Amino acid sequence: MTLRDFSTSLDALSINTATVRRQRGAEVPLTHIIDQCAALGIGAISPWRDQVAAVGLDQVAQQLRALGMGLSGYCRGGFYPATDRAGLQAALDDNRRAVDEAKTLDAPCLVLVVGSLPGALDGRAAHKDIARVRDEVRDGIAATLEYARGVGMPLAIEPLHPMQAADRACINTLEQALDVCDELDPGRSGALGVAVDVYHVWWDPKLAQQIARAGHERLLAYHVCDWLTPTRDLLSDRGMMGDGVIELKKIRGWMEAAGYSGHAEVEIFSQRDWWQRGGDETLATCIERHRSVV
Amino acid sequence: MTLRDFSTSLDALSINTATVRRQRGAEVPLTHIIDQCAALGIGAISPWRDQVAAVGLDQVAQQLRALGMGLSGYCRGGFYPATDRAGLQAALDDNRRAVDEAKTLDAPCLVLVVGSLPGALDGRAAHKDIARVRDEVRDGIAATLEYARGVGMPLAIEPLHPMQAADRACINTLEQALDVCDELDPGRSGALGVAVDVYHVWWDPKLAQQIARAGHERLLAYHVCDWLTPTRDLLSDRGMMGDGVIELKKIRGWMEAAGYSGHAEVEIFSQRDWWQRGGDETLATCIERHRSVV
Repeated sequence: MTLRDFSTSLDALSINTATVRRQRGAEVPLTHIIDQCAALGIGAISPWRDQVAAVGLDQVAQQLRALGMGLSGYCRGGFYPATDRAGLQAALDDNRRAVDEAKTLDAPCLVLVVGSLPGALDGRAAHKDIARVRDEVRDGIAATLEYARGVGMPLAIEPLHPMQAADRACINTLEQALDVCDELDPGRSGALGVAVDVYHVWWDPKLAQQIARAGHERLLAYHVCDWLTPTRDLLSDRGMMGDGVIELKKIRGWMEAAGYSGHAEVEIFSQRDWWQRGGDETLATCIERHRSVV
Repeated sequence: MTLRDFSTSLDALSINTATVRRQRGAEVPLTHIIDQCAALGIGAISPWRDQVAAVGLDQVAQQLRALGMGLSGYCRGGFYPATDRAGLQAALDDNRRAVDEAKTLDAPCLVLVVGSLPGALDGRAAHKDIARVRDEVRDGIAATLEYARGVGMPLAIEPLHPMQAADRACINTLEQALDVCDELDPGRSGALGVAVDVYHVWWDPKLAQQIARAGHERLLAYHVCDWLTPTRDLLSDRGMMGDGVIELKKIRGWMEAAGYSGHAEVEIFSQRDWWQRGGDETLATCIERHRSVV
């Protein structure tokens, strides 16, 4: 099995726009990020809903079309759990809007960060019942899936690192995500799959096995960055590819052996390092590392 | 299934001495910690090797005997991986000494924090091959087990949270730990098992299933604290039981249903909170929470 050659082309590179959403410490509008990427020959991005909303959905769609720029995914749906029926319904409504936006932007999938204990993100968990939120998440994905199938927008469940189990996502391993996929889409229709982010799954002793289990139909997105030692923050201390301990080519090898042929999307939250640098420097480094170590 | 009643007795309470190793920000000798625990009616501790060494093994053994104080475990063996044969051998030698010390202190088990990428703890990983260190760890446990069987000291593998997979332990789920147990001790002899620390495993969707799989013979230790939201440090921002989101009674119920009847050992690393308080306040709070929420 030979890896695809990333050294001679940027065809497989995508930039998750969170990577450069702050430049020299300041928030940067999506329109500027898109222009920066285009100027450097980057052909795909994965934007966040709040960044799109700040500019306007139609304007972003128009800019992307004008530049011939594609998406590797759209961030993000999910955050299903709530304390009451009205909250659960509001999440479903919001996820339908996310599906529609993804469709307008011609994204290949909507990435789902599924949510967890309501209120935990603000330090005030309304309850501790993780089995309950896992049930709510499954039901929420099922409802969104029904709508998304009609629209033709695949959903990619992103298992998040166990250190984010309380506040951001109660789906924490690839195995768990694939169990949900098998329950809700037993026919492997392509409508439901996973986003494999190396940061969240690199440690998993069952990773190779579960990537193989996922197979081509379920592998909808692949995100790269690196795990730093030490890691100083649970959310925003990710490393640039090559600067940490993740075996990037080994994992990509497993992905490609399972049939994945999509983008390697760079997603780096880095409050203390990359978000303090200029965006062009960060993007140039992404390109260099994409060619050499991804 | 009714839980053991912790509200009326401290028989099941043990204090991991790391919980009060710093008091009002300063390191405190083990002899003082032992006296503090005894004065409060606490009948068991789990001390760390460096704390024991600072006082002297025989003196600690004598103090424990004089007070009629028992151990719930001894912290810790492990840290097997190394870059060369001499390093691997040095780790095995050190683990034999740890077994002997545990025996001298009459510990019910030696807890193993197995180690991971050599050098990662100092921010300079010598390599990134996590499969290699997992093999080295299995071989190291096998060698220590052979020695420990002869001495009659059970080994308890402690799976560590995946956020510590790079630097402290490459065994990161209870399932993975039990797979090693099954490989090295298929007869479930009692010589090899696991230490279940809620902080490391609470997030695991397979936790109940794997605790049941472990069963009485493999469940050698049970550690409690809590997961705070937000968590501000990957190592030393653990919460006091009841202050976070872990379902402590539910997990203890699974342990007891599987046949566990040992201590609930309080192990809290808390640089910003409990280590800044007085030891008596911390210990009194441990007692109160043991009675009410553990």
